[in-house]
Amino acid sequence: MRQVGSRDDNASLPRSLVAEALGTVFLLIAIVGSGILGERLAAGNVALALLANALATGAALYALIVWLAPLSGAHLNPLVTLVMAIRGDIALRSAGFYVLTQLAGAVAGVAIADAMFDMPLYAFSSHLRSGPSQWLSEFLITFGLIGMVWTCSRLRPSALAGVVAAYIGGGFWFTATDFANPAVALARALTDTFSGIRPMDVPGFLAAELLGALTAVLLFRWLVPNTR
Amino acid sequence: MRQVGSRDDNASLPRSLVAEALGTVFLLIAIVGSGILGERLAAGNVALALLANALATGAALYALIVWLAPLSGAHLNPLVTLVMAIRGDIALRSAGFYVLTQLAGAVAGVAIADAMFDMPLYAFSSHLRSGPSQWLSEFLITFGLIGMVWTCSRLRPSALAGVVAAYIGGGFWFTATDFANPAVALARALTDTFSGIRPMDVPGFLAAELLGALTAVLLFRWLVPNTR
Amino acid sequence: MRQVGSRDDNASLPRSLVAEALGTVFLLIAIVGSGILGERLAAGNVALALLANALATGAALYALIVWLAPLSGAHLNPLVTLVMAIRGDIALRSAGFYVLTQLAGAVAGVAIADAMFDMPLYAFSSHLRSGPSQWLSEFLITFGLIGMVWTCSRLRPSALAGVVAAYIGGGFWFTATDFANPAVALARALTDTFSGIRPMDVPGFLAAELLGALTAVLLFRWLVPNTR
Amino acid sequence: MRQVGSRDDNASLPRSLVAEALGTVFLLIAIVGSGILGERLAAGNVALALLANALATGAALYALIVWLAPLSGAHLNPLVTLVMAIRGDIALRSAGFYVLTQLAGAVAGVAIADAMFDMPLYAFSSHLRSGPSQWLSEFLITFGLIGMVWTCSRLRPSALAGVVAAYIGGGFWFTATDFANPAVALARALTDTFSGIRPMDVPGFLAAELLGALTAVLLFRWLVPNTR
Repeated sequence: MRQVGSRDDNASLPRSLVAEALGTVFLLIAIVGSGILGERLAAGNVALALLANALATGAALYALIVWLAPLSGAHLNPLVTLVMAIRGDIALRSAGFYVLTQLAGAVAGVAIADAMFDMPLYAFSSHLRSGPSQWLSEFLITFGLIGMVWTCSRLRPSALAGVVAAYIGGGFWFTATDFANPAVALARALTDTFSGIRPMDVPGFLAAELLGALTAVLLFRWLVPNTR
Repeated sequence: MRQVGSRDDNASLPRSLVAEALGTVFLLIAIVGSGILGERLAAGNVALALLANALATGAALYALIVWLAPLSGAHLNPLVTLVMAIRGDIALRSAGFYVLTQLAGAVAGVAIADAMFDMPLYAFSSHLRSGPSQWLSEFLITFGLIGMVWTCSRLRPSALAGVVAAYIGGGFWFTATDFANPAVALARALTDTFSGIRPMDVPGFLAAELLGALTAVLLFRWLVPNTR
Repeated sequence: MRQVGSRDDNASLPRSLVAEALGTVFLLIAIVGSGILGERLAAGNVALALLANALATGAALYALIVWLAPLSGAHLNPLVTLVMAIRGDIALRSAGFYVLTQLAGAVAGVAIADAMFDMPLYAFSSHLRSGPSQWLSEFLITFGLIGMVWTCSRLRPSALAGVVAAYIGGGFWFTATDFANPAVALARALTDTFSGIRPMDVPGFLAAELLGALTAVLLFRWLVPNTR
Repeated sequence: MRQVGSRDDNASLPRSLVAEALGTVFLLIAIVGSGILGERLAAGNVALALLANALATGAALYALIVWLAPLSGAHLNPLVTLVMAIRGDIALRSAGFYVLTQLAGAVAGVAIADAMFDMPLYAFSSHLRSGPSQWLSEFLITFGLIGMVWTCSRLRPSALAGVVAAYIGGGFWFTATDFANPAVALARALTDTFSGIRPMDVPGFLAAELLGALTAVLLFRWLVPNTR
């Protein structure tokens, strides 16, 4: 049984990749699916749609991380994998396979969610998400997420699932963006529904996320030294 | 004290069956009762009704599984019992009694919920739930549930209640169906309220659920080898 | 440090009674206060008011039980104290003091909640809650609560707070009544707000609750034998 | 790794202060940000706005306390620091730095939240919050919070984050105020949005909070003697 942040080995890499694929497929189903159903049922009240979206995504994150962490670490996020590689918790080659798998899983999850709700499998989103305040928001939410993962994976591994679920679920409301995940950002460009993002707005999000993650690494490398 | 997935023995079978009966009675009370009250109070806003339905069902699942797992394993679902039998965690004869008890409990729970809210004890549902996107949804939610039960009952037994509650509670929003339980599907055909399903649509759901469960067993037998 | 169900002793009785008083004061503040504010802000949508009422009460129950269980067992309910006395976990004389304290705390809590929201400190409720379906509901919710307390206090004491909070919070939606506590029922007769109950309807609730509790004791004495 | 209430030492003080700063920045982002977005999306329904505000703040508190408690104790509140100093769990000099850091973090968090949502960074609030019933409410919520922190930091440290999150999240509904934190009260005077408080109303809140905290210390010093 392995925790987020444990060293991988070649014997278990295929199992880990299947777990990462399952996790990102279900994560995107949760985000996109609950966005579609929330908007469809909320009769025009965006607060109700976002409430459903936030609660369903937070609940899914909790279940997915507890379920899959013993199999792959449940990174479910290229930036988490990158940070684990920086800390030496995953080999670079494995990290590369993790990221490719996460991207593929996320893209597949969007199509499955759209299919469940009889929407086109893929359609470029027209949901405008751009501008400095959105980038500030995306920088902050990612900074916090990586700070939590860095800290809890060392000091409180069994609480990590609950912390991430509460933080990202709450972040639907206390930030203006709450993606904090490049695989999610890219995949969400492919659905023209409640959770979508215009393809041309994705690069700004990716840059803000990367900057947030690297800032967190610089700070938390000092705050939580890498000893076990 | 026994965990989900432990071997049963003849001495405790009657106690286990009473626990499974109690659990399925209360599970159907939670699903059907909160559906009725949610729809009644939501003044036509289906999102609010579904929010109440999802939160109450998730909360009930958490309480029921923690409460009853030491007594029967808290399967509360014929497919969970089937999978435990496949893995050798419950004897075939006991499994048969479990499934019969779950069906009886679910049917009784529907009548009690209807009685609490002054509805006819039993009435065939007229709620249409059919078509390929619904079957895809039901396949997926069941696949995920069985994957979680298979994994967590071995590797994280104390977290199983929270995982199932979060996943099924969230699934009200991120899937189009979220039954994942043949006893629940059959019993919900017997109430013509918010949570109902037309009797003629039940077979499609049962087939999708069975297929989802068996697919999960094939995959997770490899992902989580059966060692203790 | 003592768990729910542990034996009390004379030295700590005053501390236990202060803890029971604090707990019931805050419990009634949570139920009555969130009922008032929910109704006031919901603009006529009863589903929204009940959602706030259920979430706030469930959250308060969780916090109060974890907080006070090491001090008094956090019974907060005369029927829980009665059942603990039947099982021999609390002396009869102490149990009597517990019940008197719970009643006094509940009555005080109603006045404090009303004062916080500028309502009359006490006013008889005009909220009709009567009839066989209400009594069935009250029997069931109490039966389940006592079954959970009996089981978890022996087999899963650290999970009891979460189980009770989820069950009672969810029960706002899946039952028609969800009191399950004679001190709460009596005190709620004294506020003419969202959570009130007509004084003349209280005896029916008390009878249903007592019957539910005793039925649970009869069944769970067999299901969970009194060994440690 | 340190729990809330552990002794600090000079070597780790800078790390602790960075953690307290991060925690109060994110806490104010959660309170103010979710207030702004809740009100903006709720289309005039204050119950929906407050529901989003309460859920997001409770979720953030849980994540922040679990994340930062190993680094600084995660006080995030001058009154918690004061009480820990009274009990001898933190040196007076460190406590002074903690309080200054919390105030600075809270003030910074308000500006960041406002920036994320394109509001003026700072603007005096016009939200009237005054009068005896508000002060009673603020006395009570602070009394309960300090009682919980005092008790759980000794007897149930690993449950403290969940208890505080549930209590403060629920308190949005069952009290009329729910600040319970002087740094939060001061900072909320600086945003003219949903969560604001008129500067001239802050002193009444601070007095009620201080009185509540000191009353809790007097009572809980007797209820939970200071032994380890």
